[in-house]
Amino acid sequence: MFDFKYYTPTKVVFGRNTESKVAELIKEFGGTKVLIHYGGGSVVRSGLLKRVTDTLDAAGISYVTLGGAVPNPHLGLVYEGIELVKKEKVDFLLAVGGGSAIDSAKAIGYGVANDGDVWDFYDYKRTADGCLPLGVILTIAATGSEMSDSSVITKEEGLVKRGYSSDFGRPRFAIMNPELTMTLPDYQTACGCTDIMMHTMERYFTNGGNMELTDALAEGLLKTVKKNAVILRDDPKNYDARAEVMWAGSLAHNGLTGCGNDGGDWMTHKLEHELGGLYDVAHGAGLAAIWGSWARYVYKDCLPRFKKFALNVMEVENKGTDEEIALRGIEAMEDFYRSINMPTNLRELGVKATEEDLVTMAHKCAVGVNGGKGSAKFLREEDMLAIFRASM
Amino acid sequence: MFDFKYYTPTKVVFGRNTESKVAELIKEFGGTKVLIHYGGGSVVRSGLLKRVTDTLDAAGISYVTLGGAVPNPHLGLVYEGIELVKKEKVDFLLAVGGGSAIDSAKAIGYGVANDGDVWDFYDYKRTADGCLPLGVILTIAATGSEMSDSSVITKEEGLVKRGYSSDFGRPRFAIMNPELTMTLPDYQTACGCTDIMMHTMERYFTNGGNMELTDALAEGLLKTVKKNAVILRDDPKNYDARAEVMWAGSLAHNGLTGCGNDGGDWMTHKLEHELGGLYDVAHGAGLAAIWGSWARYVYKDCLPRFKKFALNVMEVENKGTDEEIALRGIEAMEDFYRSINMPTNLRELGVKATEEDLVTMAHKCAVGVNGGKGSAKFLREEDMLAIFRASM
Repeated sequence: MFDFKYYTPTKVVFGRNTESKVAELIKEFGGTKVLIHYGGGSVVRSGLLKRVTDTLDAAGISYVTLGGAVPNPHLGLVYEGIELVKKEKVDFLLAVGGGSAIDSAKAIGYGVANDGDVWDFYDYKRTADGCLPLGVILTIAATGSEMSDSSVITKEEGLVKRGYSSDFGRPRFAIMNPELTMTLPDYQTACGCTDIMMHTMERYFTNGGNMELTDALAEGLLKTVKKNAVILRDDPKNYDARAEVMWAGSLAHNGLTGCGNDGGDWMTHKLEHELGGLYDVAHGAGLAAIWGSWARYVYKDCLPRFKKFALNVMEVENKGTDEEIALRGIEAMEDFYRSINMPTNLRELGVKATEEDLVTMAHKCAVGVNGGKGSAKFLREEDMLAIFRASM
Repeated sequence: MFDFKYYTPTKVVFGRNTESKVAELIKEFGGTKVLIHYGGGSVVRSGLLKRVTDTLDAAGISYVTLGGAVPNPHLGLVYEGIELVKKEKVDFLLAVGGGSAIDSAKAIGYGVANDGDVWDFYDYKRTADGCLPLGVILTIAATGSEMSDSSVITKEEGLVKRGYSSDFGRPRFAIMNPELTMTLPDYQTACGCTDIMMHTMERYFTNGGNMELTDALAEGLLKTVKKNAVILRDDPKNYDARAEVMWAGSLAHNGLTGCGNDGGDWMTHKLEHELGGLYDVAHGAGLAAIWGSWARYVYKDCLPRFKKFALNVMEVENKGTDEEIALRGIEAMEDFYRSINMPTNLRELGVKATEEDLVTMAHKCAVGVNGGKGSAKFLREEDMLAIFRASM
């Protein structure tokens, strides 16, 4: 078991109509002038943005707004946000949306609180000394960014997608009303469930230091999301299932399911980041499309964990060799992806990559992880290419 | 499912030799002059206190010390601590020890940050507006006070034991080195495991709002502690088992295992508080001695939860009526208590209570909860007396 730090200062306010508490929470955390940052038009069309601004108006909190955060959020908008915050003397950021708006807001926060180019942090050149305080009203259960230390930004030039993690970026509060996620398209709901499970699976498949308690929490979380993802496929307005998935999304990525391990594997995410940078695919679907090929490539090097996953999460039959059990678990996971209409390879994802594209992605991925990465199995550029090829 | 808040701002630093980080953490949270508050002599004899003061000396952080926090910590020492903090212009509290030292430090913190008598908070007369910042070096895995919002203090006059909960009292940091718990007497280790499990069981046995994810986390935690308590009975120096129990202690009481429920039952704790106030018994042992009688008195009113507990935590055979399964789970839990040398009634606890004592305790308990309390079953004074009688 490895030593660990666990730090989740985000105040979570969970339940129906909790967005009505937004002004109170901003005041509690010292905000007086707010940048409301959001994504596409759904937040406007649903009336949520209006409800938020009405609440701030009533509380006497002034604000400016900046929409337009897209999936795989762009650096250009981050720069725009930084300028706006400085010009308007904003002292608190409010992200209204999912991971795109939250990650974009985190990057704006780093850019305001630190001198120099904010991309430096995402380009591994230096670390941040602070972040403008940030609150969240969550509308998509997926990235866990509402409690996590991480954010992912795409630089348009060269389509480079990179993540940066810092405790400074953890949101001060997260308002989570499961009802706000009910109008998501089915595909986005399934993508979210996939992303949530992957955040914990990345921490689960390691060759170092796993803790029994962490495993028990991780397995319980994975089984809960798996079950409720299927419920939501058939009944998207099911409040309880929305709530289970939403809360799981936060716990899957706030650090809880990694305590005591070696930091996790994370190669499925790294491989998907290259897909996401190049093709602008939905992150969750990209993960599902890659995972099976990754798992088949690495499972022999991480057999006890794949066996445990197969038995305790996928609940496959406990017979045959460890390898057979592990493979049965991988198959069961892919069956689950198919059951919620997620792709299990790049073709099903709709990516028509040439061999040259695969070579480019593997190369960029290897550069992005300084040559190699992975705990289940340490992967170098040639391994990454082999996995991309297998995923076609 | 009920709405909930979840707020666990405590920065946890977990692992071997983590006490060496204490000065760095105090500085991170703004402390410049520290009151080191501890309990009996074990912290002195083990050399831990010396290591802590050496670290503070080396970092140029000044401090004063106050020992003497006893199990069921006394209000008198809290008053003494408040005076000392004010006189010495202390701006940060460091509790070194278990729940007694931490709870006593929390009460000192409330007393310093608020005018008037600190006992008012414990006597339900008013709520606190703040608390002096507090850090913890944990040496006993049990109360979860290192991450929780709660503290329990005993007023010597009339031996009144009362709890007070406030987010202001949550520690800023908690240093957890499992090695520091290795020298605990076996009885204290078993008491700690009992207390840890009870914190989650109090949240589990409810008639309202249980969330699947919360249940899955709770069940995983309970099974992990149950298994590792037995390992520690036979091998008290087992690092991994110490770590599993220590981390479970924090998660069992930081709110995680209660998200979405109605707040929990808590009557076993309330009944034990009367025992602890009157007889100064070890809290964990007191809980074990009461629980079976409580469970048998209430299980028919909370049958689905007792059945689920029996199957998923105690893993009893799934046959017969729900009542039979529930009772089999209660018996299995009592067998577990016996297996780690915990009492399952007041006689085994060593309490020779007269009928008059039982009447007094039931009356004080009823007054303490304003007449009645409980979610598994709402208990009034006559119910409390019946449970005390059954526990003899």
